[in-house]
Order: sequence, then C-alpha cells, then structure tokens
Amino acid sequence: MKMMLVEIASLINGEIAAGDTIEITGITNIDDAGPGDITFAVPPHLEKAARCKAAAVIIPDTAEEFSKPAIRVTNPRMAFTTLLNLFTPKPNVKSGIHPSAVVNASARLGTNVAVMAQAVIDDNAVIGDNTIIYPHTYIGRDVAIGSDSLIYPNVTIRENCQLGKRVIIQSGAVIGSDGFGFVTVGGKHQKVPQVGNVIIEDDVEIGANTCIDRATTGSTLVKRGTKIDNFVHLAHNVVVGEDCFFVAQTGIAGSAKIGNNVTFAGQSGSAGHITIGDNCVFAARSAPINDVPAKSFYAGFPARPHREWLRSEAAMSKLPDLVKKIRELEKRLAEVERQ
Amino acid sequence: MKMMLVEIASLINGEIAAGDTIEITGITNIDDAGPGDITFAVPPHLEKAARCKAAAVIIPDTAEEFSKPAIRVTNPRMAFTTLLNLFTPKPNVKSGIHPSAVVNASARLGTNVAVMAQAVIDDNAVIGDNTIIYPHTYIGRDVAIGSDSLIYPNVTIRENCQLGKRVIIQSGAVIGSDGFGFVTVGGKHQKVPQVGNVIIEDDVEIGANTCIDRATTGSTLVKRGTKIDNFVHLAHNVVVGEDCFFVAQTGIAGSAKIGNNVTFAGQSGSAGHITIGDNCVFAARSAPINDVPAKSFYAGFPARPHREWLRSEAAMSKLPDLVKKIRELEKRLAEVERQ
Amino acid sequence: MKMMLVEIASLINGEIAAGDTIEITGITNIDDAGPGDITFAVPPHLEKAARCKAAAVIIPDTAEEFSKPAIRVTNPRMAFTTLLNLFTPKPNVKSGIHPSAVVNASARLGTNVAVMAQAVIDDNAVIGDNTIIYPHTYIGRDVAIGSDSLIYPNVTIRENCQLGKRVIIQSGAVIGSDGFGFVTVGGKHQKVPQVGNVIIEDDVEIGANTCIDRATTGSTLVKRGTKIDNFVHLAHNVVVGEDCFFVAQTGIAGSAKIGNNVTFAGQSGSAGHITIGDNCVFAARSAPINDVPAKSFYAGFPARPHREWLRSEAAMSKLPDLVKKIRELEKRLAEVERQ
Repeated sequence: MKMMLVEIASLINGEIAAGDTIEITGITNIDDAGPGDITFAVPPHLEKAARCKAAAVIIPDTAEEFSKPAIRVTNPRMAFTTLLNLFTPKPNVKSGIHPSAVVNASARLGTNVAVMAQAVIDDNAVIGDNTIIYPHTYIGRDVAIGSDSLIYPNVTIRENCQLGKRVIIQSGAVIGSDGFGFVTVGGKHQKVPQVGNVIIEDDVEIGANTCIDRATTGSTLVKRGTKIDNFVHLAHNVVVGEDCFFVAQTGIAGSAKIGNNVTFAGQSGSAGHITIGDNCVFAARSAPINDVPAKSFYAGFPARPHREWLRSEAAMSKLPDLVKKIRELEKRLAEVERQ
Repeated sequence: MKMMLVEIASLINGEIAAGDTIEITGITNIDDAGPGDITFAVPPHLEKAARCKAAAVIIPDTAEEFSKPAIRVTNPRMAFTTLLNLFTPKPNVKSGIHPSAVVNASARLGTNVAVMAQAVIDDNAVIGDNTIIYPHTYIGRDVAIGSDSLIYPNVTIRENCQLGKRVIIQSGAVIGSDGFGFVTVGGKHQKVPQVGNVIIEDDVEIGANTCIDRATTGSTLVKRGTKIDNFVHLAHNVVVGEDCFFVAQTGIAGSAKIGNNVTFAGQSGSAGHITIGDNCVFAARSAPINDVPAKSFYAGFPARPHREWLRSEAAMSKLPDLVKKIRELEKRLAEVERQ
Repeated sequence: MKMMLVEIASLINGEIAAGDTIEITGITNIDDAGPGDITFAVPPHLEKAARCKAAAVIIPDTAEEFSKPAIRVTNPRMAFTTLLNLFTPKPNVKSGIHPSAVVNASARLGTNVAVMAQAVIDDNAVIGDNTIIYPHTYIGRDVAIGSDSLIYPNVTIRENCQLGKRVIIQSGAVIGSDGFGFVTVGGKHQKVPQVGNVIIEDDVEIGANTCIDRATTGSTLVKRGTKIDNFVHLAHNVVVGEDCFFVAQTGIAGSAKIGNNVTFAGQSGSAGHITIGDNCVFAARSAPINDVPAKSFYAGFPARPHREWLRSEAAMSKLPDLVKKIRELEKRLAEVERQ
C-alpha cells in the first residue's frame, strides 16, 4: 500500500483539513501506528490519537479542531473498515481439490471451490461456488454449504446440516453435534437419538471452537446475519433470529427462541424453553430464566431490567452500613424504651 | 417410515383411544409436526399438543380426555425415544480402514471396526469390535477403546487413556490433555509432568469440544453411564461417579471427587479437592467451594442449600425497600428521642 | 524405575531420617501410592501421607517427626517435580516428516523436527529445531514456531502468527482465529477484517481447546512464561504480561492490557479496554470491569477488593435476619410512639 492522503479521503468520502500530499503506507490501530500509518479515532480516544505516531487520523466530522492531519467522515469505524477491506490482500488460496483431500465421488462442488489438504467431504455433500474448505475440515454426508463461504481448519460439520452463502466458520467449531438429550429410566440415562439438523442462514459468522448442536427432531436454526463469537454453546432446537450478536463463552439452553437483533454479551446465557423478544440486550454474565419482552436491557442472574439490577447492586454496596445502622437503631430504641 | 397408529401403539405398549388406521409417516417434536407425524407431550404441554398439526400424540396414561388421536403410555418420553431408535436409520458407515487413514502396524483392531478417512491410530492402540472412528480423529499410543464405541471427527485421545464399551465422544473433544500443574520457583512457573491418564468407563457420552485432562499421577476417572455435555472441563485427578449429568460449560477443578447420580446444571462448577456426595443437584451457575453431603440441592456461588439461596434472593429483592425503611425508622426514632 | 531411597535423596538434595536401602519403584500421589512408591506431602496433608501405603514420603524440612520413611527437603512439590521429570520417559517420537503429512516446499524446518501423520504445514512456515508437530495440526502461511516446542494433535495456528521457544500447545487450541469485530450500518453487521496476528513468547503453555484471537491490526500478545489452561478466551488485541496464570474457562475481552505475574482463577474474566497492574489475583468467577492497580486481590462481579467482597458476602448472609430485625424495630417503635 502506498497512497496520498487525498486519495484515501476520496475513497472514504471524507474531508481533509491539511496534508493532502502526505504519503500513507499502512493502516493500523492507535497504539501500533507508526509515522507512515493512518489510524482512526472516536471519542473518548481523540486526544490519544492526536498524540500518537500516525501520519494521519480518520475522525468524526463532528470533532473539534485536531492537531494532526486528519480526514473527517460520518462514521470513522466504517471508513476504517472500508480501507482495511480495500488494502487487505485476499488469501492466496488456489481453487481445486488438493491431492491429499478425500472427496466422495457423490459430492457436488461448484466452480472455483478450494478443498485444501486433507479436508474430507463425505457422501452427497454440496459445496457452492467460490467456497474455501481449509485443511482437516470434515463435511458430513448430505451437508449443503452455499457459495462464497469460508470454512477454516479443523471444523466439523456433521451430516445433513445446511449452511447458507457467505458463511464463515472459524477453526475448531462443531456444527451438528448431538444435542444433550436423555431419558432416565430406573436411574440409567438412555440416549434420545438426535435426528434433526442445524440450519445456518446467509452471512452468519461462527467463532472458533463454538458448538451448535443438532435438533432432536426438526432444526436448530441461526438466521441471516447473526454473528457468533468463540466458545458459544447453542443447544438443540434453539432458534436464533437475524442480526444477533453472541459474545464469547455464552450458552443458550435447549429450545430457547431468540428474536432479531438481540445481543448476548460475554459469558452470558439463557435458560431453555423461553422466548426472548427482538432488540434485547443482555449484559455480560447475565442470564434470563423466563420470557423477556422485546427491547429489554437486562443484567444479573437471574436477569432483570438493568435499572433494577443497578439499584440492587447499589443497595448491596450499602449493606455493611445497614447492618451497623440497624444495630445503632436497636440501641437507641432500647434506650428510649427504658425511659 | 410408514405405519398404522395401531402398529405403533403395539411397539410401545400403549393404548389407543381412536384412530387405529391412521397412517404415520414421521416422528418429530410438537412444533415441527405436520399432518403425517406422531409426536409426544407431557404436562404442561398437553394443550399445545392437542392444537398442533400432528396426526397423533403419545400422552401419559394419567392424562384426561384428549381431543386428538392419541396413544396412552406410562412414560411418553421413553416411548418417543423407543420410536426414534426404531426408525432412525443407522449411519451408513462401511467397516474397514480407509486407504487415507494411518494405522500403526502395532495397533490391534477388533472385527467390524471402521477407521474413516485420515484418522490416525498410533502405536499399540487397541480398538474394540464395531467401534467407529471418524475422520481426523487421533488415537494416541497405548490407548484402549472398548467395543461399540463412536468417536466423531476431530477428536483427540492422548496416549495411555482407556475408554470402555459403548462410549460416544462428540467432535472436537480432547481426552488426556495435560493437567494444569506447575511449581513456581523464583517467580517462574515450571511444568509438573502429567504422567497419569484418563479412564472413561462403559456407556459414557462426552460432548463436543469437552476436555478431560489426564492425571498428574494416577487417573482422572469418569465412571459408568455418566453423560457430559459440550464445553465441560474436568481437571486432572477429578473422579466422577456413575450416572451423573454435566451440562454445558461446567468446570470441575482438580482432584474433586464427585459421587454417583450427581447433576451439575449449565455453567456451574466446583472447587478442587472437595468431595460431593451421591445424588446431589447443583443449579445452573452454582459452584460449591466445600464438601457437600449426599442428596443436597444447592444453588448460587458459593453454592448453598437451594432454600437458603431462595431466601437470600428474596431478601435481596427487598433490599432497596429496606434502605428506605431504615431511613424512615431513623427519622421516627429521632422524633421520639426529641420528645 | 528402581532406586534406593538414599539415591533419590541425593538427587533432590534431601535428608533421610531412616530407610536408606528401601527400594523405590514408582512415583505418584498420596491416594494412588502403593507399597513400592514414593509420594510427597505438604501441610495439611502430612497426617494423611503418614497413613498412606507409600514406601516413603518427601516432606518439608520444617515438618515435625514423621512415622514413615521420609526425605526432608526445602520444597517438596519442587523435589517431586524434579523426580517426575527424571523418571518420565520422553515421548518416543521419531524426527522427520511422516509420508502422509503435507509440508509446502517453501516451508523451512530446523534439525530434528518431527512432523507427524497428516499434519499440514503451509507456505513459508518456519519450524525451529527439535519441535514436534502432532497429527492433524495445521500450521498456516508465514507462521514461525521456535525450537523445542510441542504442538499437540488437532491444533490450528493461523497465518502470520509467531510462537517462541519451548512453547506447548495442547490439543484443539486455536491460535489466530479472527477477532470478533463488526461495524453495524443500518442494522446489518459488517465484518472488520482482522489483519493482525498473535505473538506467543518463549515458555508459554496454552491449554486444550483454548482460543487466542488475532488482532484487528497489530498483535495479540502473550509474554514469556505465561501458562494458560483449557477453554480460555483471549480476544483480539489483548496483551498479557509475563508469568501469568489463566485458569480454565476464563475470558478476557478485547484490548485488555494485563501486567506481569497476574492470576485469573477458574471461570473468571475481564472487561475489554482496561488495564490490570502487575501481581494481581482475581478469585474464581470474578471479573474486573475497570482498571485495577498492581498487587490487588479481587473477587466477585463486578470485581472488588477481596475484603470488601467478604464483608458484603457476610452482610448478605445476615440479610434475612435483617429483614426480621427491621420488622421488629418497626413494631417496637410504633409501640413507643403510641405511648
């Protein structure tokens, strides 16, 4: 990469205050930026950015004067992402089947598919155009994967699961493992066959070592545009809406139904067999145990409205004081009673 | 599948009220059931089942009248499981060693074993009859696996570990990783060699991406019939009894001893070096830090008897009120004192 | 192993009270020790050790009289580790590239490297002397791994990541998965390319199925000597100091900066974009949400000084009593007011 600041400004529809002819040779974050780099900043990081080593900074058009060469845009994070996309070299992956890969004769591969070393594609699997299958990935019988998807190394996709277009599965993820279902008869746990599947719609991303269990019957479903971080557990028959976020180490119990645009922050969870409305946000480490109406912001365990949680946290911090106060009240009252 | 309702009733020892000749073509849950399907229901789902699209429903023999064709049985969940087992096609896996698998010449395989594409079986491993080893699974040196076991793709079983009969290991699980043991000398952590192993007894199931660490010396042990969900961590030298449940994302610290028929619900845990009696239940997100007597039902962290936890949760919800009440008491008492 | 007690004492610089010529044939823990074994014990386990079946026990030189043959040393755990190291047979791994492994012609391997069955080493990767790469491990493009490292089966190390010397990566771990970064425009989440890498310094150990995400730009960094347990999540751009411990199922959110010699106990966590000073300890299940000064011992969520947490836990256990007391006070006060 080598580009004048004015050229970059035009790529991201920004306005330059000064420094049109500055030469930019890299894009990175504030901390790592050196004298040839461009970075971005939003409040409260503008001051730090003004003092950093970068040659120039992408800032919000609402920002006040700035002591460094800068490009002003409506959404600096979006502009930065655009630049990263433009200047990130595409992975240099050759299409075709590596000789060490094992692709069953009944599998059907689209055009320009890459099946890298030692991937295994089982009977009747279907892989869409331009999809890349990294090494040591297992694609089970009758699995379908849409076009332009990216399946990283050591992923397992079990039989009958269906993935949409532009799906990204990070390494070590497991799609379609058996749900955790048993009937206990005479103290012994007998396995309930898990004969359903998992359906992952278009534009979903699934994090490293995340597990999505297949349904007992029917489908575990993750709808379009939802993004899932590492170590997330979606149990059997969970249904997740569109455009949700599941941050790392979150666990959703069986048959929970989650609306669109819901965020579960890190290490949160949900009880099974409950319904979560659209546009809910669950704070880190919270977990609802009952239905939650749309547009709720919940915290704590069991999860409750965030304001309630704040109030009870505040009261709890006063608790040792309360103990003292009550002791005092008792003394004073005893004094009064004695009179 | 295609069968008359009366035939199904006879398979599960049930009684039909009406609809003997109804033709059943599928088995599934209430939500997904269509006009040819049979499903099952137990309270409180009987009303929902009566309104669903299924052709017939398996219900408890204690249920009152039911507005749909139904089979009455003692245990509907068990009957449903029986049907699923009968009608689930067995995985069509050919026995034999796939040419791309690497099986050391010193390994001993029973009859009818399947070693699928690119599995690796290391020196002196022993695999019992009818066991299936899926692709990309690593079976270490001197490992023994009993008959009729199922090891899914991308599993790692490290050296010297021993697995019983009818064991199921879901994808990505790791059996026999090093325990987390260090001695710190002069501020530097030196590794304590983890020279023990893991023993998994008969009829144990282990979830996707679960890790069971090998013992420092001796064995980490999971006894007969215990079922473990995804993302469970059993540290070195843990001993788990028979017929336990470990639900997803639970972590048990080193050397904990857990009795028979114990349930750890989701995202729970246990301190190390403690003893948990038989028949205990730990609620979701709870974690004991001291020994727990048999038959305890615990919740919270640190875990305490569930009733105590309920009482303190109830008290906590009154806490903001208490703060107000104390303020009032202070005012009133000051008033009294002034007189 | 077969050695007289006096020989063992000399190996660990210890002093024998009695039993010089006792023959020792094994080393193990107290519970598993049989009549030929040596074990070790520190308080409060000395009494238990005196009653165990071991032939001899390594004890602290400060211990009082002991009813069994014993070797007294300054640090019994360290002495035990020394013995384990001496008597643990080295894994019998042949150096060289297994014929089924796929090593790109552009990769550079040091002397005495072992690349086991079906490992894949991608373009331009560099592997240091004596390093062992187990089966089904993927080493991405331009990865560098130092000498004397041990990469267990089913590990993924993505492109451009750099690992130091004597690094151990347990099975199923993922190094360099994409960070969880999106910009949301019009309700749709667009991926922010994660073009940074992960740097793992010398003497780091990483647990089974642990994930360390690559930086958005720059590097996610784990410094020398840090030990990480299973299921730990380090998000993008996290920086971890030297000689830290991260116990199982801990999650550190993006861009957190963690000092040297910090311990995160099991199932703990940290908010992102905060700074943790040197020598801090976070109790099991705690998680700081703001900067934490050096040498802090924190507990709870949100994490606070351990003493404060103890005080509020103690107050909470009195809470149901407080409710009663307040009710009583109200009655008594009403009585007084009536007079």
